[in-house]
Amino acid sequence: MAITVVGSVAFDSIETPAGRRERCLGGAATYFSLAACYFTNVRVIAVVGEDFGPEQQSVFDAHGIDTQGIERAAGKSFFWEGSYLENLNEAKTHATELNVFGAFQPKIPDAYRDSEFLFLANIDPVLQRRVREASPKARLVAGDTMNYWIKDHRDALKQVLKGLDILLINDTETRMLAGNSNLVKAARGVLDMGPRMLVVKHGEYGATAFYGKGHDGFGARTFRAPALPLEEVVDPTGAGDSFAGGFFGYLASQKELTPGAFRRAVFYGSVMGSFAVERFGTERLQQLSREEIDERFGMFRELTHLD
Amino acid sequence: MAITVVGSVAFDSIETPAGRRERCLGGAATYFSLAACYFTNVRVIAVVGEDFGPEQQSVFDAHGIDTQGIERAAGKSFFWEGSYLENLNEAKTHATELNVFGAFQPKIPDAYRDSEFLFLANIDPVLQRRVREASPKARLVAGDTMNYWIKDHRDALKQVLKGLDILLINDTETRMLAGNSNLVKAARGVLDMGPRMLVVKHGEYGATAFYGKGHDGFGARTFRAPALPLEEVVDPTGAGDSFAGGFFGYLASQKELTPGAFRRAVFYGSVMGSFAVERFGTERLQQLSREEIDERFGMFRELTHLD
Repeated sequence: MAITVVGSVAFDSIETPAGRRERCLGGAATYFSLAACYFTNVRVIAVVGEDFGPEQQSVFDAHGIDTQGIERAAGKSFFWEGSYLENLNEAKTHATELNVFGAFQPKIPDAYRDSEFLFLANIDPVLQRRVREASPKARLVAGDTMNYWIKDHRDALKQVLKGLDILLINDTETRMLAGNSNLVKAARGVLDMGPRMLVVKHGEYGATAFYGKGHDGFGARTFRAPALPLEEVVDPTGAGDSFAGGFFGYLASQKELTPGAFRRAVFYGSVMGSFAVERFGTERLQQLSREEIDERFGMFRELTHLD
Repeated sequence: MAITVVGSVAFDSIETPAGRRERCLGGAATYFSLAACYFTNVRVIAVVGEDFGPEQQSVFDAHGIDTQGIERAAGKSFFWEGSYLENLNEAKTHATELNVFGAFQPKIPDAYRDSEFLFLANIDPVLQRRVREASPKARLVAGDTMNYWIKDHRDALKQVLKGLDILLINDTETRMLAGNSNLVKAARGVLDMGPRMLVVKHGEYGATAFYGKGHDGFGARTFRAPALPLEEVVDPTGAGDSFAGGFFGYLASQKELTPGAFRRAVFYGSVMGSFAVERFGTERLQQLSREEIDERFGMFRELTHLD
């Protein structure tokens, strides 16, 4: 099944203990698409500026990602500059230039209308809701958000949560959203806001999927996947979006959304996140094969399974 | 097989968001023993003062823990006072009174000489080494340490590490001991110091077992167990020692130390840690049954296994 993803396509300048890269291709929708494309067809809705040229376009094309929904606007693309010099788990933002993204009004191409899977990456919840409402055929809708929207756009975000099947956020965001420092209680609080499933990403410690009440078809039981203990984290940028892409891409590739499929999806999310951080930007995600992905999936199983 | 454990038996005054308790029975050897006693026979070497009375003794007796090696000295027992009001993952120490523990000289009762399993809880590495050397029959030796010994008694600690099969410490201690902020590289560094296996405890995120080179019999592959996502952490005191007790107790109960036994031991460690934090002090560990323990082991499996 095809996935439509709406989110940012951007340029990132990144500094980590492993070095520095200027203006890599980045953005949540980019990481998500490149992770999900190994599992299913992906269609992107975004806006870019005149600095988005053939080099960037070719990355999407080479992976069969549908970019009809990427609007070209006058001006520059979204730009982010950050570093992880002291702490690989938390970016220090040096610059955020919204540029053409500031006036982003998502438009859904007609060719995307039959997408049954919809991913609302981290953007203004007002836009997330608009895309959700314009996608009546979407039968599974997942999304992401961040502290900024949780803190200052709570009402708009709550409207989005009512229309979400699955929310993917991190520990801090979960606690902030629910206003509870205990993760399990916070997860319950978030599930009461609407989503049928909450996937909490723990960074280097993996992820936990919590299920809302009465959603037995979703698996019904809390499930935890590890992250791979990595000897070298070159660049953590996009790990969460890559997790989301692997998770949702795998789900979209399944004929039936069984409890087992959700469990494997959490594993595949962790697998794609572990690849993403091995090189700068999307470099590693661009050069994967399904065989490598499944080999790492096997490593994750071996890492955590008793038998 | 019997385990001998050397470490502290103490009184703790603890404050957490769930309340306050004065002078609970505590100490690393106490938590370790109460966790391990559900799996195998446990023998304790420690020192206590005149404030250690029949009430405290009865806790050990009721669980069949051998206390011949607990010396009674004139004065007061080791006392610790701490709180977890802002952060359940890190204690704030308000008072540490070594009392009789300051002059502790471990003496191994003759009846303990045939113990094939030895656990060196977190005490002065000079004493750990002395007990190790006086236990030639120990065929599996595990131990713990803390930042204080790593920072200021590194040479003595390194001597201990050479005689250890298994070291159990947390993330921060692993990074500090190896002087490397990457956990995998730090684990390698620690394994180069002697232990054949390193179990890194991640608190609410579980634990990872790393194996030294050429120790295939030990399992040879990195293994990660989760912690149980808990709705209420009443008191985190002793969680790490309880982990060690469950881990080492289970190993000592096995006829053969197969790779699978080590994996299950990491799970049992996590299980016992999850019980310990459910009530103040050792309250929960005192009132367990093997059935409850195995039921929770099943929950851990379900939490992490794909099928």
